[in-house]
Amino acid sequence: MPKNRDAARANLENLYRIFTVPESPDSTLGAIDQAIAADVAGFLQTHIVAIERNLEEIETHFSSAAIPEEPTYVSEYTEFVKTHLVAQSVHTAAPGFVGHMTSALPYFMLPLARLMTALNQNLVKVETSKAFTPMERQVLAMLHHLVYRRDDDFYTPWIHNSQHALGAFCSGGTIANVTALWVARNRLFAPNGEFRGIAQEGLGRALKHRGCDGIAVLVSERGHYSFGKAADLLGLGRDNLIKVQTDDRNRIDLKALREECRRLQDRNILPLAVVGIAGTTETGNVDPLEELADFARELGCHFHVDAAWGGPTLFSDRHRPLLRGIERADSVTIDGHKQLYVPMGAGMVVFKDPTALSAIEHHANYILRYGSKDLGSHTLEGSRPGMAMLVHAGFSIIGRKGYELLIDMGVERAQTFAAMIRQHPDFELTSEPELNILTYRYCPLNVQQALAAAPARQRRVINALLDQVCQLLQKHQREAGKTFVSRTRLRIARYGEELTVLRVVLANPLTTDEILAAILTEQCEIVQQQPEIQALLRQVEDLCAPVEARNT
Amino acid sequence: MPKNRDAARANLENLYRIFTVPESPDSTLGAIDQAIAADVAGFLQTHIVAIERNLEEIETHFSSAAIPEEPTYVSEYTEFVKTHLVAQSVHTAAPGFVGHMTSALPYFMLPLARLMTALNQNLVKVETSKAFTPMERQVLAMLHHLVYRRDDDFYTPWIHNSQHALGAFCSGGTIANVTALWVARNRLFAPNGEFRGIAQEGLGRALKHRGCDGIAVLVSERGHYSFGKAADLLGLGRDNLIKVQTDDRNRIDLKALREECRRLQDRNILPLAVVGIAGTTETGNVDPLEELADFARELGCHFHVDAAWGGPTLFSDRHRPLLRGIERADSVTIDGHKQLYVPMGAGMVVFKDPTALSAIEHHANYILRYGSKDLGSHTLEGSRPGMAMLVHAGFSIIGRKGYELLIDMGVERAQTFAAMIRQHPDFELTSEPELNILTYRYCPLNVQQALAAAPARQRRVINALLDQVCQLLQKHQREAGKTFVSRTRLRIARYGEELTVLRVVLANPLTTDEILAAILTEQCEIVQQQPEIQALLRQVEDLCAPVEARNT
Repeated sequence: MPKNRDAARANLENLYRIFTVPESPDSTLGAIDQAIAADVAGFLQTHIVAIERNLEEIETHFSSAAIPEEPTYVSEYTEFVKTHLVAQSVHTAAPGFVGHMTSALPYFMLPLARLMTALNQNLVKVETSKAFTPMERQVLAMLHHLVYRRDDDFYTPWIHNSQHALGAFCSGGTIANVTALWVARNRLFAPNGEFRGIAQEGLGRALKHRGCDGIAVLVSERGHYSFGKAADLLGLGRDNLIKVQTDDRNRIDLKALREECRRLQDRNILPLAVVGIAGTTETGNVDPLEELADFARELGCHFHVDAAWGGPTLFSDRHRPLLRGIERADSVTIDGHKQLYVPMGAGMVVFKDPTALSAIEHHANYILRYGSKDLGSHTLEGSRPGMAMLVHAGFSIIGRKGYELLIDMGVERAQTFAAMIRQHPDFELTSEPELNILTYRYCPLNVQQALAAAPARQRRVINALLDQVCQLLQKHQREAGKTFVSRTRLRIARYGEELTVLRVVLANPLTTDEILAAILTEQCEIVQQQPEIQALLRQVEDLCAPVEARNT
Repeated sequence: MPKNRDAARANLENLYRIFTVPESPDSTLGAIDQAIAADVAGFLQTHIVAIERNLEEIETHFSSAAIPEEPTYVSEYTEFVKTHLVAQSVHTAAPGFVGHMTSALPYFMLPLARLMTALNQNLVKVETSKAFTPMERQVLAMLHHLVYRRDDDFYTPWIHNSQHALGAFCSGGTIANVTALWVARNRLFAPNGEFRGIAQEGLGRALKHRGCDGIAVLVSERGHYSFGKAADLLGLGRDNLIKVQTDDRNRIDLKALREECRRLQDRNILPLAVVGIAGTTETGNVDPLEELADFARELGCHFHVDAAWGGPTLFSDRHRPLLRGIERADSVTIDGHKQLYVPMGAGMVVFKDPTALSAIEHHANYILRYGSKDLGSHTLEGSRPGMAMLVHAGFSIIGRKGYELLIDMGVERAQTFAAMIRQHPDFELTSEPELNILTYRYCPLNVQQALAAAPARQRRVINALLDQVCQLLQKHQREAGKTFVSRTRLRIARYGEELTVLRVVLANPLTTDEILAAILTEQCEIVQQQPEIQALLRQVEDLCAPVEARNT
């Protein structure tokens, strides 16, 4: 069957080609590659379709569960990607995309990211990463220094220590937070006499050993949802993630915290960790870290700070004082893909005590051998890419002063936007920006006044209608694709109830005051143009009328 | 102070430039970028220095813990990267780098990876990923189909289901394995009457509820070290990761497994999961999955298959039968960055029961809302990059038949290499390749014969010397930088003891038979040239002489 043999030979040759022959610059994929290299902003602007297509419609192009039997030409696949994936993705770098924590990236990140992909190092072990291992160790030391400010003498013995790691580089903030609490849990139940430690014997025996009925993590109700996952994963149970009430500035209420701890004691539950937040995900507020450090010391428990968002505030001479006390934390999470302007996939956690990560240390026969400098012996993940390189690049190229400028500009921009909202007759600011995040909602001035005077029951009815307005407004704005804000539900102190609010994150340095003004203008237009919203607002007005009448 | 204001203005302008002005093609970084685009293999060959430099020497360039105060020019930083990072990294794509699981990548992966970075989507939620969400859901369905072979009618209601996910896309196989066991644990302790489930109440109360003293995972002694981490993390304790003995082909011994289960029962410990391995990390062997499926059913426990390495064997008509029974697994891990030829950072786990992931479902107020199609409600990680795109590209461009060819070639190459080793007078094959991984060691034929005849104690002494030879040989070969094999320690049935062996992974399609022959030749040369190794071998010969004399 010479024909079959020819076909097999042709297949084999084609297979070698994809591993040996680069994409030509004239090819469809080559052209895209060059367009991105030349001007990524222009590429995204041109190729991502602004107006949102229905998700169900998009799904039709991703609906087959069968892996194609036959190979496809790269050019054919690239056309598919252009039309159905790129065009229908989200322009997260757009200066008007201020709803989530993704920003434009510095231009140098892209060629460096490509270099990282080309090198395809695996940071789990030195044998597949070589210089990338010391580089990642340095990045962790730099972050450690940013938080803990120890002197050179401190770092010399630890930075490249084969027994230890100052922190763990992770795929994101969730793994970083989980790692921190994992370490805390294992240290609470460290080997002790007959008891060989929780890592060895498990949580059931650990609880028995300490004679307690459970362990708990305390964090404010603004805490990131990753703490719920951690409580589940680590065996605490979500019941033992205690969500402490916040004050009217979204910061943990210390009296409530103390009260919760008393209740835990009554139930014979040990506090495992107190978590402070430096930049809550929804409102960007910072917990009183100094007081939390005091309290954790009083309890004798682990103090973790989730600074995934707000950590880089430490670069700013002006705003650093907000995070006072962070240097007393046992562990701190900071994300690279947030305010270090690195592409997605870079979380980090550092530990005050350079030996802390020993609590989760592990080894294997073929790698991570005792005494090796393999980073994988102190990480939750195994194989990992060389993302630390991009953090290293950011630190080196942007420098402390560059990041300071970025942070200061973001906070300033948020204050400007807050002022615009306050001055606007149709909007209500629902959380003041402390860093560069704020929330607000559509609520005309007369409604605000009526709400202030209305009895509780009526207020709730009006707010429920405004929640619907908010939800629809956000949806229509997203679908129109010009600008984007997100939404969430928050307990707003002034009303004593949970409301739907719009959320804005101002980290993209390309977002101008004009764009912010345009966002509000567009929202007013949507309100005017959407009959459904108009109908809701008529109901609101009807409910407000008697209150207004009473007050005049 | 007009001077200061000018400086501030200049800083600000520079800052905007890095976000707005692309790297020029003539710049240092631009030139690297173009070189990689034109010919990544050539770039890596030119820029990575072959001869290994001392790690301590490399560390001196990564020793400062202070983040630079002032910004650096991109070109200056790029020079640093070229000299101190790229040059001193590992050429993982080299055809002679056969020691670990990293291979050359198909050319199209690089421009697509850059496109992914440029789009910077966040797969945790639809609002920051749009079409990437249905695309990732399709990839998970495709993998599900590869394993479970359900028909179209099955996938239609599940693939884009807003309540469920067929699997989880992860940063790697470790997170995938952890996710599988997390699901298994939460399903074992599902809500039941008064008991609200382990996710809510925690492991301590769960154990009480079931009246047991612990839960255990059973896996062969060849199991990946991630299971140890999972046992620690999930609160089982490493004591309850039962490492079952293997037979002389590195497959779990079913009798020993049954015996271990009896012992668990005696200790009132519930079996949580039985794990089968499809392609052990060190030897590439496949457990008898059909029998394990039977046994797990008998126990009534979760059956997980770690096919991180060997999963893509399912593409091959010839070798697929090795994995018979995988379709009965409750969950299966497959890594993209291994035999799907995707860059680092792509693990996946799929579940037979499309509702299984509900056991770890979670929500938040600002994303992952009930009824949304956000993938983040069923993943351990939070923010994640759009890596699924590269798996999608591989499936589409290479196709089932292309992957089949890659798998078949790899197994064939391993068999060829095994034959070379068997025929070589100086080497001993220590594990036969079942897939494309094998182990061997330096052990001349006469020593092999002497070992076979030697009394146990003498055998142990000789083997200990050979272990040192093996370790030194591997180290010198790595340092010379021409080719690379890894090493591990394995219990070798024929000797009944654990030995240090060389390990070879043959997944790079560019690895030729000539390169394999050259690896052995180089090893013989190292043995000849290294006085330390020669001294060890003289000791070996001295110990063998009396045995040989006795036998003649």
